[in-house]
Amino acid sequence: VTGLRPAAAVVRLTTNGPDDVRGLNAEHGLPRERIRAVVGKTEGNGLVNDFSRALAAECWQRELPDAVTFMSGGTEGVLCPHVTLLGHVDAKGDSPGGGLSMGAALTPVVRPRELGRRAQVEAVADAVRAACAEGGFAPGEAELVLVKCPLLTGEDFVEHGAALSASDPLASMGRSRAASALGVAVATGEVRLDDVDAALAGDLPAWSSVASTSAGIEVSSCHVVALGCSPDVHSNLRASHAVMRDAIDLAPVAALLAEIEREGGTFVQLFAKAEPSPDGRVRGRRHTMLTDSDISGTRHARASVGGLLAGLTGETAIYVSGGAEAQGPPGGGPVTIVWRLP
Amino acid sequence: VTGLRPAAAVVRLTTNGPDDVRGLNAEHGLPRERIRAVVGKTEGNGLVNDFSRALAAECWQRELPDAVTFMSGGTEGVLCPHVTLLGHVDAKGDSPGGGLSMGAALTPVVRPRELGRRAQVEAVADAVRAACAEGGFAPGEAELVLVKCPLLTGEDFVEHGAALSASDPLASMGRSRAASALGVAVATGEVRLDDVDAALAGDLPAWSSVASTSAGIEVSSCHVVALGCSPDVHSNLRASHAVMRDAIDLAPVAALLAEIEREGGTFVQLFAKAEPSPDGRVRGRRHTMLTDSDISGTRHARASVGGLLAGLTGETAIYVSGGAEAQGPPGGGPVTIVWRLP
Amino acid sequence: VTGLRPAAAVVRLTTNGPDDVRGLNAEHGLPRERIRAVVGKTEGNGLVNDFSRALAAECWQRELPDAVTFMSGGTEGVLCPHVTLLGHVDAKGDSPGGGLSMGAALTPVVRPRELGRRAQVEAVADAVRAACAEGGFAPGEAELVLVKCPLLTGEDFVEHGAALSASDPLASMGRSRAASALGVAVATGEVRLDDVDAALAGDLPAWSSVASTSAGIEVSSCHVVALGCSPDVHSNLRASHAVMRDAIDLAPVAALLAEIEREGGTFVQLFAKAEPSPDGRVRGRRHTMLTDSDISGTRHARASVGGLLAGLTGETAIYVSGGAEAQGPPGGGPVTIVWRLP
Amino acid sequence: VTGLRPAAAVVRLTTNGPDDVRGLNAEHGLPRERIRAVVGKTEGNGLVNDFSRALAAECWQRELPDAVTFMSGGTEGVLCPHVTLLGHVDAKGDSPGGGLSMGAALTPVVRPRELGRRAQVEAVADAVRAACAEGGFAPGEAELVLVKCPLLTGEDFVEHGAALSASDPLASMGRSRAASALGVAVATGEVRLDDVDAALAGDLPAWSSVASTSAGIEVSSCHVVALGCSPDVHSNLRASHAVMRDAIDLAPVAALLAEIEREGGTFVQLFAKAEPSPDGRVRGRRHTMLTDSDISGTRHARASVGGLLAGLTGETAIYVSGGAEAQGPPGGGPVTIVWRLP
Repeated sequence: VTGLRPAAAVVRLTTNGPDDVRGLNAEHGLPRERIRAVVGKTEGNGLVNDFSRALAAECWQRELPDAVTFMSGGTEGVLCPHVTLLGHVDAKGDSPGGGLSMGAALTPVVRPRELGRRAQVEAVADAVRAACAEGGFAPGEAELVLVKCPLLTGEDFVEHGAALSASDPLASMGRSRAASALGVAVATGEVRLDDVDAALAGDLPAWSSVASTSAGIEVSSCHVVALGCSPDVHSNLRASHAVMRDAIDLAPVAALLAEIEREGGTFVQLFAKAEPSPDGRVRGRRHTMLTDSDISGTRHARASVGGLLAGLTGETAIYVSGGAEAQGPPGGGPVTIVWRLP
Repeated sequence: VTGLRPAAAVVRLTTNGPDDVRGLNAEHGLPRERIRAVVGKTEGNGLVNDFSRALAAECWQRELPDAVTFMSGGTEGVLCPHVTLLGHVDAKGDSPGGGLSMGAALTPVVRPRELGRRAQVEAVADAVRAACAEGGFAPGEAELVLVKCPLLTGEDFVEHGAALSASDPLASMGRSRAASALGVAVATGEVRLDDVDAALAGDLPAWSSVASTSAGIEVSSCHVVALGCSPDVHSNLRASHAVMRDAIDLAPVAALLAEIEREGGTFVQLFAKAEPSPDGRVRGRRHTMLTDSDISGTRHARASVGGLLAGLTGETAIYVSGGAEAQGPPGGGPVTIVWRLP
Repeated sequence: VTGLRPAAAVVRLTTNGPDDVRGLNAEHGLPRERIRAVVGKTEGNGLVNDFSRALAAECWQRELPDAVTFMSGGTEGVLCPHVTLLGHVDAKGDSPGGGLSMGAALTPVVRPRELGRRAQVEAVADAVRAACAEGGFAPGEAELVLVKCPLLTGEDFVEHGAALSASDPLASMGRSRAASALGVAVATGEVRLDDVDAALAGDLPAWSSVASTSAGIEVSSCHVVALGCSPDVHSNLRASHAVMRDAIDLAPVAALLAEIEREGGTFVQLFAKAEPSPDGRVRGRRHTMLTDSDISGTRHARASVGGLLAGLTGETAIYVSGGAEAQGPPGGGPVTIVWRLP
Repeated sequence: VTGLRPAAAVVRLTTNGPDDVRGLNAEHGLPRERIRAVVGKTEGNGLVNDFSRALAAECWQRELPDAVTFMSGGTEGVLCPHVTLLGHVDAKGDSPGGGLSMGAALTPVVRPRELGRRAQVEAVADAVRAACAEGGFAPGEAELVLVKCPLLTGEDFVEHGAALSASDPLASMGRSRAASALGVAVATGEVRLDDVDAALAGDLPAWSSVASTSAGIEVSSCHVVALGCSPDVHSNLRASHAVMRDAIDLAPVAALLAEIEREGGTFVQLFAKAEPSPDGRVRGRRHTMLTDSDISGTRHARASVGGLLAGLTGETAIYVSGGAEAQGPPGGGPVTIVWRLP
């Protein structure tokens, strides 16, 4: 099998708590040393004081110090806490080509004054190109690009103050997610580099339909993991993406599932981003996600979109994440489905 | 037109706040004096300290003192605050028979020691039979039976103490909803009267697939409004119901919508009940709705099921209510759709 | 008694819910037609979706259409929902002079572009001077100045956009409270008019030690009610104020209570403002009120400061309100105590 | 110094997050190997899904595997997250006798059917006697007895069902805390063993004025740490306790602080329990802590009592814990202050 490009492996483990890593030792076909990323949902609020995320990161990083951990808080509604392991397995020569492939890359350190700005966009775009190259597919063929990016800390604000792109750590998370998503969009060709400044300023609607970005205190560079299908990967796994235009936009996801069914495929995992529509409306009707001072709008959005996607797929241990700046259209979000050919 | 049984009218008004009654004066075809019930969703938490419900009830009762108000708090996720007016209009002789009809009835006062017990079940069953008779359809043909029932108050506990079916007002709301739903089930034939005691004790799973019950401090009797189709009502409106077996059970609702589409019908309104599965699982997967001490499980359930039903219907101003004791199977709930023939 | 300046009356009514106005009809010595203001605490969250405030305002305005209603949401911790009626009674010639007096005044309509700016500050300062003049005391002698001020609405943002002092309705509430408090401070001489622009811009710390301001959708002008002691008012009621420098600054309040005790006085009512310290510290120690994404910092602050003040006074039905922009120093707040001579 | 009974040491470390153990390595005079207990407050909600507690326990147990960790979630209002290290240091012969002493003991494993029942009470009472004996003071002289006790798990309910003292894990935490506190009270002589069954049944008010108990999933026995003053301990540290009769009962704590001041003492640390009064009243006035469906009553109580105690002591990094079953009178709670002679 030597010489063949390795295939991507996607393994879902449900968890009994943020510190539950026991599934790692079960029989799941992905050797520990070939795991490259842990993409998890934990049951905290997904906001500033979500210690479920920190606890999970602590436990998984101890087990898998060389993997990137993408921990996203918030399993509202029917959603089930879980992690998805992404890694490499040897390709099987008798499987068809065009199988799921994965590449990873890292940007240089993002300096405080670069965060949320064009410099971060360009650095992420470069890393996306590198990750896709490792995976053996063109950036425009990527089906999912996960980015974990830094945020600005209290010390940054003391040192750089008004020279930064945000005025507090929470706001910087949004800026960093947006810049990372635009970096993906530039690499995939969805957004022109010339339009980045206007997009960052909010003057131009611009987004990627395959980006899923999150900001975390534990990184100083942007970690990129790209999934796509490569002609020279022999595997039965596939990934396909769709875009929900708003939080109830069932049709594109239903169409994708129908196509998978026509191919005889079986569902493996789903990755989606969700957010409350910023204009307070869904198809012209008022929503109350942004005026509820008891529950954050991101929690509402995950519960609602999670309920819809779990209903469509019949699976609740799916990755539905909030904070969708420049990831799909405002109020909507990208959806990637990993599936398996018969 | 005299002599014809009146047809039921169903009018949706979206609201800009709990006290927004302006829609009442718009052109909607249902004269104020023929409105029998106001079934609303307001944007509070739907729990003990939900003053959005009280504010809405105050404002609508002032406008429509003779109508029953069913105010349900909680428009989590994409759901849009609204009211549905139910009333009577003259039937049109040139419309087909089998149209939507409505009847209403009232039980005697439910005394504190009867609440949550067989006496309440029997009283509600009688009222359901009366309401269906007024509507011109058999109880077994009902498509939706709304019941608003009393709860036990602090004074009741002082006077009757341990002789009551619950130990505090909040718990008595669940008891009253359950007894009312079983009353509907007895009338429709879904549950045998002999099984009521075991069902109330939790020893026997028993539920109605058309009941939607809520408890409120403002009533001392049970108010019943029944919707069904009657052969001698000439109208284009129809109602049909389905049952979700769990919170992601999309198939029965999708099948119902497909059937309506095959008939050339258009969607008018949807009424559903939702709850977090009491065993902490959805299709064997853990959910965290009952272990989240920051957000009540009922809020999670409405957000999640609301997201699914809004996605299926394309409409967010639908009635999704929590507290589904004996209304559909545990963790699932009944769904009634009102629709219009071409 | 004719010809004597009327004395201020202060009546506390505890309530059983936001719509409980029954106390109004009890024997409390303040005739309904002489009530000028209703200052209430209701049990909602005190934030955007607090419908307890709207429900209470609705019910009290119906009863007392000519009085100003200051409804403040949030009775966290031990605090007890209540209203304080402020009005006039005939002075008693045999009581000593220097008694509690009240005056009220109204600004012109605050236009959207004036809100949160120097124009609002000056208008409020003028109204404070007028209210104090009616009360018969100098502005610098005021012990409490309540201001209810407008906010910017969605329509204002559509029409005036970037020309406004805030970017959304919630933010405009803070701007309006701050400008109103600075208006009080200018009238009392605590802040120089020349410093107002710098204070509004956040470049200069500036506050009033007697202002208590709130913003509400139901007004378009600023309503001002001032309390102070006037030499020519014959009454046993008195008011005195202190300033808490931070949220645990017990000493100034304890000193004030000790002084009242030395005079043989009895406690009548307390009015305070509270807020989480914006720098995240209390006396150098970290607090978590601003990083708790489940509970708003204003709710934390009311609970904590309310617990302290209730402990000191032995009374839980006191007025502790959040949103203390320019009302006392950052993280602290003004406290006014009304008391009665023997 | 050999042969002298060791003195208790009490060291407060403020923390920057649940995983912040850095203070352990600072100069604080208590050698790592002599630390017996870590008593911490973390910034989660203190309820079922408080992962700040789990994260802190994980990090501290890794550092100090032989110490007992009492982690209590909830630093509402002004309270500052921190840990208090309890350990032993060599006594100094030139310090006066009567210094603070500490003893620890462990019960046998509490079997599921014993939990919340007389068997647990008796086992804890025995352990309290042993801990006090180690400390060199009589149980009736104890100033603070910390107990960490087990709870019932899902597996217990499957195996033993209705034979248990509670119907779900959350309820079993209250049962276990109550039985542990009664165990303390039996050892100290505050409650007679004959009255335990009635007290557990809720038929007899009974409590300890020095118990502080918490339930946690990580123990199967009850861990007891007792603090008291012993004639043969030479140390300047002292501890004294008071009881708050309700949540605003400032007087006993103020009296204790005044006494410490008269002795020339300085404040070291405070340990208190707090709860919302179960009858919904504080001194006859309604409170809303138990009818707020958005914020748990325990969070309200900690914020409110914490604000009062921080105001009195001038210190926000104090231990205020909720869940006060049988720890002080209903709605009140015990308060222990550790202080230092000049």
